[in-house]
Amino acid sequence: MSKADVTLQDIMDAAKRINTYIVHTPLLREEKMDQTLGGQIYLKPEMLQITGAFKIRGALNKILSLPLEKLKKGIITSSSGNHAQACAYAGQLLNIKTTVVIPEDAPAIKIENARAMGANVITWNRKYDERWKKVKIEANKHKYSIIHAYEDYTVMAGQGTIGLEIYKDLPNIETVLVPIGGGGLISGVSTALKALNPKIRVIGVQAAASCAYYVSRQNGIPSSTESSPTIADGLTCNKTGKNPYPIIEKNVDDIVIVAEEDIEQALRLIAQDSKLIAEPSACVTIAALLSHKVKIRPNEKICAILTSGNWDIDKVGKILNNEHVEGVM
Amino acid sequence: MSKADVTLQDIMDAAKRINTYIVHTPLLREEKMDQTLGGQIYLKPEMLQITGAFKIRGALNKILSLPLEKLKKGIITSSSGNHAQACAYAGQLLNIKTTVVIPEDAPAIKIENARAMGANVITWNRKYDERWKKVKIEANKHKYSIIHAYEDYTVMAGQGTIGLEIYKDLPNIETVLVPIGGGGLISGVSTALKALNPKIRVIGVQAAASCAYYVSRQNGIPSSTESSPTIADGLTCNKTGKNPYPIIEKNVDDIVIVAEEDIEQALRLIAQDSKLIAEPSACVTIAALLSHKVKIRPNEKICAILTSGNWDIDKVGKILNNEHVEGVM
Repeated sequence: MSKADVTLQDIMDAAKRINTYIVHTPLLREEKMDQTLGGQIYLKPEMLQITGAFKIRGALNKILSLPLEKLKKGIITSSSGNHAQACAYAGQLLNIKTTVVIPEDAPAIKIENARAMGANVITWNRKYDERWKKVKIEANKHKYSIIHAYEDYTVMAGQGTIGLEIYKDLPNIETVLVPIGGGGLISGVSTALKALNPKIRVIGVQAAASCAYYVSRQNGIPSSTESSPTIADGLTCNKTGKNPYPIIEKNVDDIVIVAEEDIEQALRLIAQDSKLIAEPSACVTIAALLSHKVKIRPNEKICAILTSGNWDIDKVGKILNNEHVEGVM
Repeated sequence: MSKADVTLQDIMDAAKRINTYIVHTPLLREEKMDQTLGGQIYLKPEMLQITGAFKIRGALNKILSLPLEKLKKGIITSSSGNHAQACAYAGQLLNIKTTVVIPEDAPAIKIENARAMGANVITWNRKYDERWKKVKIEANKHKYSIIHAYEDYTVMAGQGTIGLEIYKDLPNIETVLVPIGGGGLISGVSTALKALNPKIRVIGVQAAASCAYYVSRQNGIPSSTESSPTIADGLTCNKTGKNPYPIIEKNVDDIVIVAEEDIEQALRLIAQDSKLIAEPSACVTIAALLSHKVKIRPNEKICAILTSGNWDIDKVGKILNNEHVEGVM
């Protein structure tokens, strides 16, 4: 799978490869949310996935696709947290030396979890380019294989298995909302869904504070943006990904943005109505519905992907108790 | 089913009767909790059930067993909240007039939810005997059918479907922890599990603040206790239930109690590791493991039933943020 694309077949192959290791998360029908959001609301709760986030799907698909002689040298990645945790978990599971470069201001729980799973953690500057420079230096030095969170087509194919599961559990789903950070998840999910039924609407959601895909869609060309602080620390996105961008342009019907207050309100609504703890990066899909950024018909079957739940629990507590929490850049 | 007992057959019949209305909640494997609690931890997350609690199982089984001419007159119940919500939901679903008598100091969310589902809500003194006196007066006056939360064998059979689901999903389960309030849930679940495999250990957990079943087990006879305030407002238990008591004595291997601090710590652990919001009454099972009240072997397969998640969300926030929350009597 070195070709420059991701296909439904790749995603079905990924499902076969990873299915014994991951949880087929339930598709939850949330009748109570209908009253607040309209439509018929379904949630895909990937915080119930191994490691508390969807990222294990892509990481495992990539690692299980690598030749053994490469795996013996070890793997390396960088991420704001959940992809790092996923690689650490997969590395421990498969007994592969794993190094992760994490922003020094990432939620403590994400750093701790990666360490607890035996990964060599390097904390580094939050800036994307500087972190990836560090990754490449380390990879060259030790012959590590790089597992990129969203530029890698094999990782995208793994994330796309979420699309397969949604379709399997509810073939007449009409609209699927997907958070966009780097763009790997929505690349895989939209590829799966559009191939299965081109009429399914796929809508991407970004934090307004950091929304290069949204700006690029407005401009009609890949564009960079300045970020402001956001509690959706997993969705920082100053520029579009080289490989996800054309896939997203082809498949994704609309890209919308949400404000910090809407993300906080969504976190509370998800806790109250569905009894799930979603980290802010995962709450943007419900935030988009709460803030009427997506037009929906009565009874429209809508699935919001809740990507993850790894956030410092005292900060979750503050938001539930109506206190404000500062974002990060 | 007017006989004075509950059997595996009753529970299998209940499953057939209610399965199209309820969620077969997933059995979640919580590897991360193993490190803190020992054993191999599984959760049965009934906060993901319709109405956010297991109670809908028993309520629906009872209501669907009543003759139509009785249902036309309406139903009535009293509960500290979740059973009332379940009856309200079932009443709305099946278009049956529903009256619920709720303690005036129950969590606001439980009262609001029952009202929002169209029930006629009467708030009344928290004291069990006074509330049930009111229920009987109303029932006689309007010819309502009474749906008792735990004295009714048909309700017990509905709750027992949780036991069937656990066994179906993990036939080699070794130990199941069940919260005890009135005793209806554990009566049904223990009946199912012991009939399927008598070697499965069933352990009941009460809040130390209100633990008539624990005291009765110590004394060897049904006993009353004084309660002190507890955040586990759904488990208030000053005396054993007439019908559950002999079933629990026959089936339940051990009854343990947990302190308020352990319940708060369990709520945080469940949120952090499993990303679920459990109300304090549901947290007692994990609290029992956290406080080493249950002896477990390495690798023992243990399932904790998390019964429900309906608590005021700002109070959940306070506990997650390490603040103390006062209990109720």
